[in-house]
Formats: sequence, C-alpha cells, structure tokens
Amino acid sequence: MIYLQKPDWSWRPSESVTHVHQWVKQEGKADVILFGAPLSRSSISASAASYYPEAFRKMWKGFAAYNLDERIDLTKVSVRDAGDIMMHTTNIKESHRRIEDTAESLADSKLTCMIGGDHSTTACAVRGVKKAFPYEQIGILQLDTHLDVRDPKELGPANGTPIRQLIDGGTVKGEDVVNIGLHGYFNTKELVEYADEKGIQMVTMQRARRDGLTETIQRAVKSLGHVDRIYATIDMDVLDISVAPGVPASTPGGMKSEELFEALLEIGKTERVKHIDFVCLDPQKDNHVSATVKTGVYAWLQFMTGVAMRK
Amino acid sequence: MIYLQKPDWSWRPSESVTHVHQWVKQEGKADVILFGAPLSRSSISASAASYYPEAFRKMWKGFAAYNLDERIDLTKVSVRDAGDIMMHTTNIKESHRRIEDTAESLADSKLTCMIGGDHSTTACAVRGVKKAFPYEQIGILQLDTHLDVRDPKELGPANGTPIRQLIDGGTVKGEDVVNIGLHGYFNTKELVEYADEKGIQMVTMQRARRDGLTETIQRAVKSLGHVDRIYATIDMDVLDISVAPGVPASTPGGMKSEELFEALLEIGKTERVKHIDFVCLDPQKDNHVSATVKTGVYAWLQFMTGVAMRK
Amino acid sequence: MIYLQKPDWSWRPSESVTHVHQWVKQEGKADVILFGAPLSRSSISASAASYYPEAFRKMWKGFAAYNLDERIDLTKVSVRDAGDIMMHTTNIKESHRRIEDTAESLADSKLTCMIGGDHSTTACAVRGVKKAFPYEQIGILQLDTHLDVRDPKELGPANGTPIRQLIDGGTVKGEDVVNIGLHGYFNTKELVEYADEKGIQMVTMQRARRDGLTETIQRAVKSLGHVDRIYATIDMDVLDISVAPGVPASTPGGMKSEELFEALLEIGKTERVKHIDFVCLDPQKDNHVSATVKTGVYAWLQFMTGVAMRK
Amino acid sequence: MIYLQKPDWSWRPSESVTHVHQWVKQEGKADVILFGAPLSRSSISASAASYYPEAFRKMWKGFAAYNLDERIDLTKVSVRDAGDIMMHTTNIKESHRRIEDTAESLADSKLTCMIGGDHSTTACAVRGVKKAFPYEQIGILQLDTHLDVRDPKELGPANGTPIRQLIDGGTVKGEDVVNIGLHGYFNTKELVEYADEKGIQMVTMQRARRDGLTETIQRAVKSLGHVDRIYATIDMDVLDISVAPGVPASTPGGMKSEELFEALLEIGKTERVKHIDFVCLDPQKDNHVSATVKTGVYAWLQFMTGVAMRK
Amino acid sequence: MIYLQKPDWSWRPSESVTHVHQWVKQEGKADVILFGAPLSRSSISASAASYYPEAFRKMWKGFAAYNLDERIDLTKVSVRDAGDIMMHTTNIKESHRRIEDTAESLADSKLTCMIGGDHSTTACAVRGVKKAFPYEQIGILQLDTHLDVRDPKELGPANGTPIRQLIDGGTVKGEDVVNIGLHGYFNTKELVEYADEKGIQMVTMQRARRDGLTETIQRAVKSLGHVDRIYATIDMDVLDISVAPGVPASTPGGMKSEELFEALLEIGKTERVKHIDFVCLDPQKDNHVSATVKTGVYAWLQFMTGVAMRK
Amino acid sequence: MIYLQKPDWSWRPSESVTHVHQWVKQEGKADVILFGAPLSRSSISASAASYYPEAFRKMWKGFAAYNLDERIDLTKVSVRDAGDIMMHTTNIKESHRRIEDTAESLADSKLTCMIGGDHSTTACAVRGVKKAFPYEQIGILQLDTHLDVRDPKELGPANGTPIRQLIDGGTVKGEDVVNIGLHGYFNTKELVEYADEKGIQMVTMQRARRDGLTETIQRAVKSLGHVDRIYATIDMDVLDISVAPGVPASTPGGMKSEELFEALLEIGKTERVKHIDFVCLDPQKDNHVSATVKTGVYAWLQFMTGVAMRK
Ligand SMILES: [Ca+2]
Ligand SMILES: [Ca+2]
Ligand SMILES: [Ca+2]
Ligand SMILES: [Ca+2]
Ligand SMILES: [Ca+2]
Ligand SMILES: [Ca+2]
Ligand SMILES: [Ca+2]
Ligand SMILES: [Ca+2]
Ligand SMILES: [Ca+2]
Ligand SMILES: [Ca+2]
Ligand SMILES: [Ca+2]
Ligand SMILES: [Ca+2]
Repeated sequence: MIYLQKPDWSWRPSESVTHVHQWVKQEGKADVILFGAPLSRSSISASAASYYPEAFRKMWKGFAAYNLDERIDLTKVSVRDAGDIMMHTTNIKESHRRIEDTAESLADSKLTCMIGGDHSTTACAVRGVKKAFPYEQIGILQLDTHLDVRDPKELGPANGTPIRQLIDGGTVKGEDVVNIGLHGYFNTKELVEYADEKGIQMVTMQRARRDGLTETIQRAVKSLGHVDRIYATIDMDVLDISVAPGVPASTPGGMKSEELFEALLEIGKTERVKHIDFVCLDPQKDNHVSATVKTGVYAWLQFMTGVAMRK
Repeated sequence: MIYLQKPDWSWRPSESVTHVHQWVKQEGKADVILFGAPLSRSSISASAASYYPEAFRKMWKGFAAYNLDERIDLTKVSVRDAGDIMMHTTNIKESHRRIEDTAESLADSKLTCMIGGDHSTTACAVRGVKKAFPYEQIGILQLDTHLDVRDPKELGPANGTPIRQLIDGGTVKGEDVVNIGLHGYFNTKELVEYADEKGIQMVTMQRARRDGLTETIQRAVKSLGHVDRIYATIDMDVLDISVAPGVPASTPGGMKSEELFEALLEIGKTERVKHIDFVCLDPQKDNHVSATVKTGVYAWLQFMTGVAMRK
Repeated sequence: MIYLQKPDWSWRPSESVTHVHQWVKQEGKADVILFGAPLSRSSISASAASYYPEAFRKMWKGFAAYNLDERIDLTKVSVRDAGDIMMHTTNIKESHRRIEDTAESLADSKLTCMIGGDHSTTACAVRGVKKAFPYEQIGILQLDTHLDVRDPKELGPANGTPIRQLIDGGTVKGEDVVNIGLHGYFNTKELVEYADEKGIQMVTMQRARRDGLTETIQRAVKSLGHVDRIYATIDMDVLDISVAPGVPASTPGGMKSEELFEALLEIGKTERVKHIDFVCLDPQKDNHVSATVKTGVYAWLQFMTGVAMRK
Repeated sequence: MIYLQKPDWSWRPSESVTHVHQWVKQEGKADVILFGAPLSRSSISASAASYYPEAFRKMWKGFAAYNLDERIDLTKVSVRDAGDIMMHTTNIKESHRRIEDTAESLADSKLTCMIGGDHSTTACAVRGVKKAFPYEQIGILQLDTHLDVRDPKELGPANGTPIRQLIDGGTVKGEDVVNIGLHGYFNTKELVEYADEKGIQMVTMQRARRDGLTETIQRAVKSLGHVDRIYATIDMDVLDISVAPGVPASTPGGMKSEELFEALLEIGKTERVKHIDFVCLDPQKDNHVSATVKTGVYAWLQFMTGVAMRK
Repeated sequence: MIYLQKPDWSWRPSESVTHVHQWVKQEGKADVILFGAPLSRSSISASAASYYPEAFRKMWKGFAAYNLDERIDLTKVSVRDAGDIMMHTTNIKESHRRIEDTAESLADSKLTCMIGGDHSTTACAVRGVKKAFPYEQIGILQLDTHLDVRDPKELGPANGTPIRQLIDGGTVKGEDVVNIGLHGYFNTKELVEYADEKGIQMVTMQRARRDGLTETIQRAVKSLGHVDRIYATIDMDVLDISVAPGVPASTPGGMKSEELFEALLEIGKTERVKHIDFVCLDPQKDNHVSATVKTGVYAWLQFMTGVAMRK
Repeated sequence: MIYLQKPDWSWRPSESVTHVHQWVKQEGKADVILFGAPLSRSSISASAASYYPEAFRKMWKGFAAYNLDERIDLTKVSVRDAGDIMMHTTNIKESHRRIEDTAESLADSKLTCMIGGDHSTTACAVRGVKKAFPYEQIGILQLDTHLDVRDPKELGPANGTPIRQLIDGGTVKGEDVVNIGLHGYFNTKELVEYADEKGIQMVTMQRARRDGLTETIQRAVKSLGHVDRIYATIDMDVLDISVAPGVPASTPGGMKSEELFEALLEIGKTERVKHIDFVCLDPQKDNHVSATVKTGVYAWLQFMTGVAMRK
C-alpha cells in the first residue's frame, strides 16, 4: 500500500454519523476498503476520469447513510477510505504497475471498492487480485456498453482493452466473463466475433430489461457458479446518455439509472463478489447540476446497501 | 388579499382563447384561483424558486388549453390569476405571515393553486386554510423526495420543516399525511423514525412505481377517507434529476415526468382536493431548453385536466 | 438531381469498413439513397435544423456498422450519400421547389432517406414522390408531437403545415395519415377537430406505450394496408425533452429514445416503406455531449437494421 | 403603421418613473419612436435575432433611466414603443416590404430606433426613409465587422447584402457610407475591392482605437457633412466575441463594449442622426448571464443619453 | 469569536509552503485574520454568495504564494483562516448580529479580511469595528457599481442598503465614504441625490480609468486623510460582466480585472486600511471554467501582495 | 515524415480561393508546412488539447484569406497541411519520439507551424530541429503564463517541463529563452529562482503591456540577435481567461487577444523565426461560441500575415 496517499483535502471530523462523509473512516480496520485509482491518460479518447475519486468524495455530504427503500442503516458496515494511488505523470506503464501492486496488497480485505479512473485500471486490479490468490478462479461481472476486447498490441494497455488483456494474459477465462448492458452500434463485428470465440457471455440491454435487472444479475452470478471470487466492474458508460452526460462514452439506448441501482443492490447482496470498481466517469463533462456524479455516489450506496444486507 | 399584487408584466389580452395565456383570466370570478408565493430565502440551500411564479406564467404561451390525451377542453374550467403575494425583502417571518393571511382569505374558493417559492410556504398556506376552516380535519397529500420533518427549533421555519411545523403545531395529524416518492439516501434515520412515530404514511417511489401512480394516488386518497379536505403539495424535487435539472434538490432515482403527470391527473380528479401547491422549482438552475419549467406547466395542466373531468 | 451537391467536407476514404462513415458510399449504385434538405428558415420558430445533415454525417464515426442486439451486419445493405440539396438563401418557395424536384428524381430508388431540415420539407418530398408515381396512393406514417395541420393560407408553407398541405392539395388522403406520439397540450382544439374531420388516425403516446411500439407500428401499417407505398416521416420533436434537448419543439411527456428505436426497427422491416425522413433536429440547441445528434444517428441506424432484415 | 402590433406582453403600468420600463411609453406622442423588426430568417447563417426585440424589452427593468456618468436624467426625452412589425412566416420579400412601408410611415418622427432582426432589415428601412424624403441625401454610419456588400443577385436580400442593395439600387452613394470596426479576416479581397471602387469609407478597428471612438465618430460625421440626414446602423457583431457571445458573427479582435458605448454617446449627440438601428443580436445564443442583451440595452441607452444632451 | 467554526473540509497539511493552501494557517497568531460570512439570503435578488467562502478556499491550490510581477514572497506575511461565522437558517437579523459581534471581537487584529456573503454583511462588520473602536473615525473605500444607499425602512437590512445604514445610523459620515467604479444606469436619480446630499465621494469608472487606478486609490486615500482607519469593501459587481459572469449584478461597462488588480495592490500598500471585505460573488453563477472565483482569489492576493510590501 | 497521416476528413476541393480552407493545400511544395501534434495525455492536468488540430482545421471556413487591417492577400504565401503525427495510444515516450523525428525531417522547410497538443510537444520539436541543424544556436521566443521549468525527474516529459528539458539537456541555453506574458501567482518562487539562475529573460505581462507588444517582440528578437534561428512557441494559456475559456490553464490577468494578435504580426515579420507552434488549447473546454478556437485561428493568421509581409 506504499502508493496510497490521502486525498488533498478531507472532511471535518464529526461526532454524529448521519451522512456518508461522516460514516466513511480515514483510519483503522473496516469491512470495506475504498481506494481511488486516478488515472485516465490511458483512455483512448481524452478523459478526466482521473478526477472522479475526488468528485466522488466531495459529493458524499449530500447523501444520508441510511437507505429508506430497504430501511437499512448503512453504518452497520464499516468502510475505510484508504486514499488514492499516486500516479506517475507521464509513465502509464508505471502507473499501471502501482495499481496492480496496490490491488494485490489489499486483495485479502473482506471487500474492496476501487474508484477509477478509466477502464484500463480494471485489468491491473484483477491481475493484482490474481497475484494475491493465484489458485483461485476469478469471474468478471461487467456492466458496460462495450466488450473492451480491443487489441492491446495495437493500443497498448488502453481503456478499450482490459478484458482482452485478462483473457489473452491467462488471468481470466473468456467464459468467466459476463457482460451486461451491450446494445446498438458500439462494438464492431470483429470484436463480437472475438467475444463469441472466447465464450464471453453477452447479455444485451434489451434482454436484461426484459428479464429485469435483479433476475439478470442472479442468472449471471449463477452462470459464474464455479468461480472462486467475482470481480464486478461497472463501466459507467453502460448508462444512457440522458442520465449520464458526464461519461464521455455514454450512449442513447443505455441502462437507466434505476436499472443500474437495482442491479447494484443485487450485486451487493452477492457473497462471492469480493471486489468492485466504478470507472470512466469524467466529472469535467458532467452537467451543471452534477447529475452523473450524484448517480455515481447513489450507485455505490446501492452496492453498499446490498453488502449491509449480506450480514 | 391585501398582499396580492399583479405580476410585473402581463400577456396581451386576446379575443381567441386557444392557449393557456389566453385562458387564465386576470379579473373576475373563477372556479380556480391561482396565486404566487415568491419566497425562497427561507430555503436551507440557496434557491431562486422565488422566480418560479414569473417563469411559470411566461411559459403559458407554449401550451394549448386542450388536453389531447383525454380530449378535454380546459376552457370549461375558469381560472383567475390573483397575482403574487408581496414579500418582505429581509423579514422572513413577516413574509410567512402574509402567505398565511392570503391563504386564509382565499381558502373558501372552490380550488386554490399556490405557485411557490420553496416548501416553507406550504406550512403557512395550510395554517391559513386551517384558520379559515378551524373545525375541518386537513389531510396532506405530499409528493416529495423528503419527509420535511427537520426540527424548526434548529432551522426556524425553513423549507426542510413544513410537515413537522404542521404536526408539532397541531394543524395536521401525522397519520393524515401521505408522502409519496421517497427513495434512496435523502432522509436520515432519525427523521424516518420521527415519521414512523407520528404515523406519517410513507410510500416509496419503488412501491408507487410497482403499483402504478393512479392506483397509488387512489389508495392514498382512500387512506385519507376521514379528512374533510385534502391539501396536495407537490415538491418538484420528487422528480428525477434527469428530468428536473432546475430543481436544486432533485436526485437520481426519482419520479419520471410521465409518472408525475399520471399522478396529477388523478389528484385533479379527486373532489376532496381543494388546494394544491407546486414548490421548489428554481428557474435559474434550469437547463438551456427550460425543460423543468415546461414540466412544471405540464404538471399543473394535468391537475387542471383532472379538475375539468370532475364536472 | 441537379440541385444535389457534395457536403463541404468528406471523410477520408478507408480500406476497412467497420464504422458508419466507412460504410456509406459517396458514389455509385446503392440500395438506399441518403440526401440532405438543409432548410429551416421555413420554421415557425427560429431553427438551425438546416445544420443537421452536416452534424449527422460528422457523428457517423462514433458508430459501428454492426447491430449487436439483432446481430446484423449493416454492410450487407449498400447506402449512398447523394449530398445536400442546394438551398436559396432567401427564397423559400424556390428552395421548396428544389426539394420537390429532387425527391421526384430520386423516387424510384429502392429506398430514400431525407435528412432535414424542418418539417416543411416533407410536404415537398411527398409531392415529389407523388409526381413520380402519380397513380400510386401514398400513406403517411408520422411520428410527431404535432398534427402539422395548421393553415398554409395563414403561415405559408411553414413547418406547422405539411400534412394539411398534402391533404388540402389532394396529394394524400386524410385517412391515409397515421400520426403516432401525440400527447398533452401541443395541438389546439380546432386542429384536432380538423384532423378528426379529415380522418387522420391519431395514436397518442400513452396508447402507443400501452400497446408497445412494435405492435403500434404493425397496426398502423395494417391500417394503411390499401396504400401503394408508405412515406415515413420522423419529426424528432416526438421525443421527450429529457432525451432530445436539441429539438426546439420537444416536450415533456414525449417518446423515450428506446421507444423510438423500437418503432424504427419495425418501420425499417416494413417492405412497403419506401421513403423516410428525419426532421427538426437543431444541432445548435443540442447539449454539450451532443446527446440529440447521437440519438438521431442511432435512430437512423435502427431503421437501417430493419431494412437489412427485410432481405 | 398598419403592420405594427403591440408585443405579446407588456410591463405593468407604474406611477413612478425611475427605470427604463417605466419611462418608455406605450401610447402618445414622443420625441423618439422605437419599433421592432423581428425578422432573421433572411440571415445567411441560422439566427434567432428575430427574438431580440422581445429580449430587449424584457431587460429594461434592470436599468435606471438615469445616466450617472453624464448626470443626465433620460426622462427629459420622451420615447414611445410602437410595437413590432408583423412578419410573414415564410415570405421574406413580403416581410421586407412591410419593414420598408413602416419605416417610410415613421420617417418624419424626430428620431426612430429600429430593433432588429438581422441586417437585411436595414436596407428596407433606409429605402423607406428615402421614399419619405426622396430629395434628401442619406448618409450611412455603420458599425460592423463586415462590409455587407455581398451580391444580392446571388443571395437575394440576405443580411450580407444591405449596403450593396442600397448602393446598387441608387438609394445611397458609396461615398456616403462610413464603416467603422472592420478588422481581420472577415471580408474577402473582392468585397474590399468593391468597397474601394464605390468609395465606401472604411475605418478599421485598429485605426478607430488609435484615434479614440469619440474622435472617430466626429470625423465620420464630418466626412458626411454634405448629406441631409444620417442613418446609423449598429451591427452588434462589431463587438468582440468575448463581450458579445450572443451575436452569431461576433469575432475576436472586435470592438470592446466600452468603445461601443463611447461611440454611441457621440452618435446620440449628433443632430443629423435621425435614425438608428441595432441588429444581429441573437438572444438564444447569449450566455447564461445574458451579457449580450444587457450590452444591447446599455448601448441603446448611451445613444439616448447623447440624444438627451442634444437639447 | 464564539460564532466561528471551521469549514466543512480542510486541505491536507503540508511540509512545503509553495502554494496558497499551504501558506494559510488554520491555527495560531497571524498578521492577517481571514474569516467567512456566508450569508446571502439578505440579498435583494436571489444569490448564492453564501457559498463563496467555500469556493474561495477550494481555489487556493491553483495559486502560488509568490507574486512574480513584484517579486514578492507572500509567505513573509502570516495569515490565519479563522473559519466561517455560523449563520441562522431563517433569522437574518440574528445572522447579522453574529457578524457584528464577530467583527467586533476580531477588530484589533492587525488586519482582517472578511469573505462574504452579500453586501449587507459590510454594514454589520463596520458597526462591529466601530464598537471596538468607538472613538475612531472610520472611512469607507468602496469599489462598487452601486451606491448601496437604498432605504432600509423599505427593504430591511438588505444588500442594497449598507452604506445608508451606516450613514443614517451615525457609524460613518457620508463624506468619509469614497465610491469608485460607478457607471451607467444602475443607480436611480434619487439615490444619486441622496449621495450628493450626504457628501459621498463618487468616482465614476470613466474617471478612474482616465486617471489610472493607482492614482485613483491614492487620491481616495488622501481624501480620507482625516479618518483613523479605513475599511475597504470590494463589491465584486464592480467588475465588467465579461470578466465576472459569476457576480449576479455585474454589468457591461464595469471595471476590468487588471484594473481591479491594480487598485487592490495599492489598497494593500495603504497602512491605514485595517479591514477589507470581498462580497457578492456567487459561485453557482460562475462559468464552466470558474473565471470569477479565480479572479476573486487573484484579487485577494493582490491585496495581500500590497500588504507584504508595507513591511 | 513517415508518422504523418491525413486528418480523418478534408474540405471539399474548390476552384476559387477566398477563404482559408481553400487556400491551405493538401499536397505539393509550399513556403509554410503546417502539421498537427495531437498529444495531450502528457499534460499534468487532464487536457483534450489533442483535439485542437482537428478543431483548428474545421474553423478555417469562417476566415477569409485576406487581412483587411494590413490590406494583405495571404494567398501570396503558399501553405501545405502535412497532416497529423500519428500518436501511440498509451506510450507517451514513443509519441514524443515521433514528434522529434517529424520535426527533424521537416526542419529544413522555409517555415514550420506545429499545432499542438500540449506544451510537452515543444521540447520534442526543438530537439528535432536541433538534430537537423546541430551547429546552429536556437533561441526560444515563448509566450506563456508559466516558465515551464518544472523538473522532468519528477514529472517525466510532461507539459510543465519543456524549457527545463531543453536547458538541462543542452539543446538551448537559458539566456537564449525569452518568456513574455508571465504574471501573478502561477510560478513558485523556486521556479523563478531556477529561471534567474539559468538566465532566462522574463518579461512580465505588465511590462509588455506598458511597452506595447510590437516593441516588446522587437526587443526580445534583438536580445536574441546572436542566435541562428528562433523557435517561437505560443502557449495559448498566456491569454486572459475571459478571452480564452478553452485553455485549461488560462488565468485572470493574462494577455488580451488583441495584444496576442499584435505580437504575432510582429513575430511573423521576423525573418529569423523559422518555426512556430501553438499549444495547450483544449476545444472541449471552449465555450458555446467556440471563442477560443476562433482566437486560435485568428492568431495563426496574424502570424501568417506577418510572414506575407516578409516578402
Ligand atoms: Ca465502455
Ligand atoms: Ca469499458
Ligand atoms: Ca419538501
Ligand atoms: Ca424535497
Ligand atoms: Ca411536425
Ligand atoms: Ca412536431
Ligand atoms: Ca452587417
Ligand atoms: Ca456584420
Ligand atoms: Ca454593493
Ligand atoms: Ca453592487
Ligand atoms: Ca502555460
Ligand atoms: Ca507552457
């Protein structure tokens, strides 16, 4: 964890714990470890997703640590903010290595939440987890508009390649990847053919909507019944562009926020999910009411509500 | 009504009556009395909801006085715009008193529509109605993301407190309040406990969506079967942030505009609803196509369509 | 086709054909002919919809020529971009004449797609088709928030009048027009009465949503069973304002993008649809992430997917 | 004046006269006649300058009718708002004819102010004035980034052609036109050559800045010493893009607002200036604080201050 | 100082001191005491200037604690951030009392900087200083577009009244007030007459520009030669709207940022200036690059540079 | 030049040559070679300056190839657009190498214009030139708010380090660098000390404004009298934030656009300037009227006007 450093600023300590910024601890033991991976210069198109960990934390104050739908008090789960991984300014390979090392060192926490950064960070984090548990089989539960199987030989370890890095590198098997949220015209024919060949399970947005998101997640988890641990990765561009203006690659025809929230509650409830990340949200592209960052915090809290219901 | 004054500007009088600005009268008797309560310096967070009555009226021209879905000609109902309550620039207590007095003086109209302003104005208006009908039991039908039961001892008569003001002040019983649209992480545990204790009926957004909005309103009205008159209060922050950027406290996970429209049609149809208000819409925060103000006018017209169907 | 000219700029020619800008040809024979009608000074309210053909083409690069939902490779259909009709700077009547002439000259293509421009262009295009096929009966399948039957005697050939131009001019019969997507308060009583009188089939948004869009289109097509060819016209203001900020007349309560996409897939599949246009999208009013233009391209691709499924 | 109609709405009448909206009269005799020419479909590029007369009037309330710099009470001059010229929706030639007729009928007022609309309206207005005073020689004092001498044979009576219309049509002599504010790369070589040939006096922005705006106007007026009346036309695109985002054709390197204000004070003082117009400001393109519309009102008030100093 | 509390969040402590956020201390003795007065519900028009203290502090990180123009190392002056005055949510009078008490208790610091909040806070702060030094004569050096002498009997202690409160209340003499930056049409005739009557020294923006800002400040200070201490109050609406979109009342024709910076350097150098405040900057209205907040921090640093040069 | 490729799209070829997009050639010999270096993932803060070459070319159409101020026809100089250097998606070092190679291969052109990209590209380009002319002494004429002498050992070859890379690497001598436009609080004390130590000539914005920009450039050129060739590098963040919202690091207190234009005309006239670049303009951060990109094109045309005056 030598690369983790505290954020530039911190919330004033508080006696009472009613809101999220008062609930998340800066120090000590915790059920859940949260950390930022502020890297997005590895993104194919220009992105400021590296600023999301900071924007995410700044938005905490507007949220109570209590879920009214489920009548769940989140404070029964403990969370520690371990800070951000220090990134190199110009050496992307070095930054990726630090993410991998950090993920490895944190992998035996009960639960880790990584806040990206772009989607290239996921490949590093999964490799780190794999190093920590070399004999475990890792399944990937991916919410994404894209397959992320573009060729690293061409792009390097960019944000279009993480799933292919993991499959071609032997870290994860193709059939242990479930991708939910694909739709429309955002993956070329040859990428779909690669995915078919490798056995990636593709669940289109239409299919997921027809079945319901809870059911969809349950089926996906069941189909990963044989893996030892599940790494859930939430590319926020799975969201529809009307609810996620602040995600550069969000598209029309995507997932609605309430669908994402339903999915994340179910993911949170799933015992075998030990790791999650949220990537590709660029706060500089958000609209004037910060709708996307608010959606990002809400999404994480849905996952945490599910976790609180595990107990 | 001594505090009511005409708005700064008015629409050119017209012979034909095809659009809303031609239908709403400036003078004379009418079935429905509309008035503005342009106060939002009582809002906890900075708000320009005080500008909504003006923005609301300016948007009328873009709407026909005819509902195509229901094939209803709205002009069969008469509406008078009584103008805005003059507010004191710095004395919030005085402004609140004027709202209460005005609401009292207008309370025996067939139907009143108050255009806020922030949600603190509702407490005043309900107290005014209560003064006019001291022996009647008033029920509150509230669409809101929040319970509005924060403590006035701490905040004064701010927009986070109106329901608690009314309950603690004996104007309304807790069990005569139905709140529809609650969700997520926007009410602390202790506020929910207060609401439980006082018997406030809480209908989450998820529950309302599952049952359908028409059904939800019908059930709410039925549960208020014993009250003499129903005061409906529509906090526009019940709407999802993607459809209501111009409401400072709107959130992800909220009500969709078509759900609000469905609910308001049903509320309009309900005979016992004698008063309604629309609050917390800040036109200065709206987006460049005025989506929220347009939604606000549409919402009011849905209510008016329901009223026209009463006859 | 003497009025057609190439756009100001063009995409770099490419060997591989994976994305839309590589698929659409500049020259040669093709199943589908695409052309722009960049005219919007005929719009009642100020509009820059004349810039949509250019914005539409510039957005192609972000879309793959492969539909993942239906597993359809679009490149099996050939498309040629015939360029834009040159418009007169100040003589609207002359511009309209050029559209009519162009539509006539292209009418015997297997399929034509006109990219507007405002809705006044549709009246010209349908008249052009009628001239090419004087003995055929033309049906209109219109997705619109408005009836477009305002009186040309009052407004001239503006964008509020095309359907009335066609009916009063004898080009199309009232009962051969199906309008889908009407809702709320955007058509006056007298216009609805005109439509009733002429036998225009009005399908409200609520009805279409209840029946499902696929079913709605199928019924509409069936009700036009007797016509020889169907001209589909998509006024993008049928969309809800939250998904189409870049359409000046979009409203709350409108069609959702996924509903439009479903409808267009079905329209694309319909053999008798020989012509389609997309109108009234003003790229200058779009939001900072170009959500509306992206939705416009997606919508067209849904239609093209349906066309590819015809074969 | 048969084409003039009152605006859609009007300010509430007031006893006291401290602000501009209270000072401008709706009826009766006045020193200055103000009227709107809401036409911009004649603009080469899409423009909503037709909405400027309305936006201009709505902004009045924010301005006192007192100039503090000069210690001038504007209310000593009387102004009447004669309303807007009704425009045809699609027949630009007809709309132009109405402007010409109206300008002719108002030409014998002490002073007229036309609020455009795009710059094509100026050609009409000057022709109208010429009809009213056929034996007078008219000089044009133009503030503009452009020469406006493009060929009407090619574009029709569009906003790039008014000066050429007037010169080629014999209404005004080339040497009786002074253009101030030209700079940079916004006029092609051939247009400059036309201007040279016709004797148009071109004063670049750099030259005007070096000499001072007051001095520049005085020299321009002197150079028009032989004409009978001066028509001043202010194309707001003369302003720098940083102070006039709401003018579609504003550019870097343009006039600063304080320079425009200085020029207009001097123009206002000039007895022989009998007519002025302000054109090409598109309120839909203005920024979120309405900086350009505010600048437009300020500019007009500077002119009016000068007029008040004439007396 | 019992009403002062730390801000919600704080910068991470740092070893090195190169930037402003590292230089400003949270504790201990200091030459300069900085504190926030986050009150703007007393503003006539809706304002979120109450959020400026937080926005001001968040922007520090982007500024070095070194002035390159003057080659001055700011760290030779010590500054302590005493936090924000806690405001009452709805009782404006109480909030004003707290500002007055706090200003009194801090008045014997070498130098105080109050970050508003709206301009009503200045009246409180000056009264607090007067209480601390009842036998001293206080001069006001005001940079403002407005005189701020509207009648508190009408508006209460709103932001349009502070100077009149102080004069009518006997805290300050009219002739001990110098207002710099007045221009145009933003003060009614009667307010100017009040100012004349009370002997307020009015320096228009034009005059100040002609003389140069350094010279203007020196003259103003000289004209206050007889007072014991000078309270400088910077209403950020003195700035031109093109450089200060985030100030609700900024206007065209105002001060340029470089002029404000020049003025503040000179004010900073002036020994007798013991207090300064910066008011009326509303960060919610700022543009997408935070130009106004950046200008606000720069302005304060210019003052601090002047202070550093005093030594 | 093996790394140069044509842009994704190109302007339609044209017979007449009146505007910039018609003047710049795609092929053949030319006096001036223009090329893009679309790299900004090397920027310290997130930047999309990599999109500037494309945005720059798209804006050409709005500019005539004729300078009215100087009455210069630009077409007498020939310019070829050599396209963009292909960048590696994730390997910054490799991308930098390609820039260096390309700059070397083009260095013997009469004049090269590189369109960045961020300021890290300048270090590469200068090294490339040095390789081509190893025995020539290169002077740097830098317009910038920053010294760009942060330590590459810490940041790698990021955009804060180019001048230091060149000095420490022995490519350029410190005393052969003139930096114009420094001001305020954007360079720490230690960086200024480094610059002093190395003999960098620092001309503050205030000094340059006092002397006039033409004079300032002439003096700078004179002070570089001993060098063999001058490389001019224009960091667009030298501009004031009010005229350059689309430059992430632009600040208040910066250069005005007309000052930049004056400087560039003079730089263009200077025979010994053989290379120029324009960097750090991020079109994604520009405002809704593209003010910054327009300023960027204007700036380049001023330079070209100067070049045309060389002959
Ligand atoms: Ca993705
Ligand atoms: Ca992804
Ligand atoms: Ca509420
Ligand atoms: Ca609420
Ligand atoms: Ca239509
Ligand atoms: Ca329509
Ligand atoms: Ca013009
Ligand atoms: Ca012009
Ligand atoms: Ca003030
Ligand atoms: Ca002020
Ligand atoms: Ca820089
Ligand atoms: Ca630099």
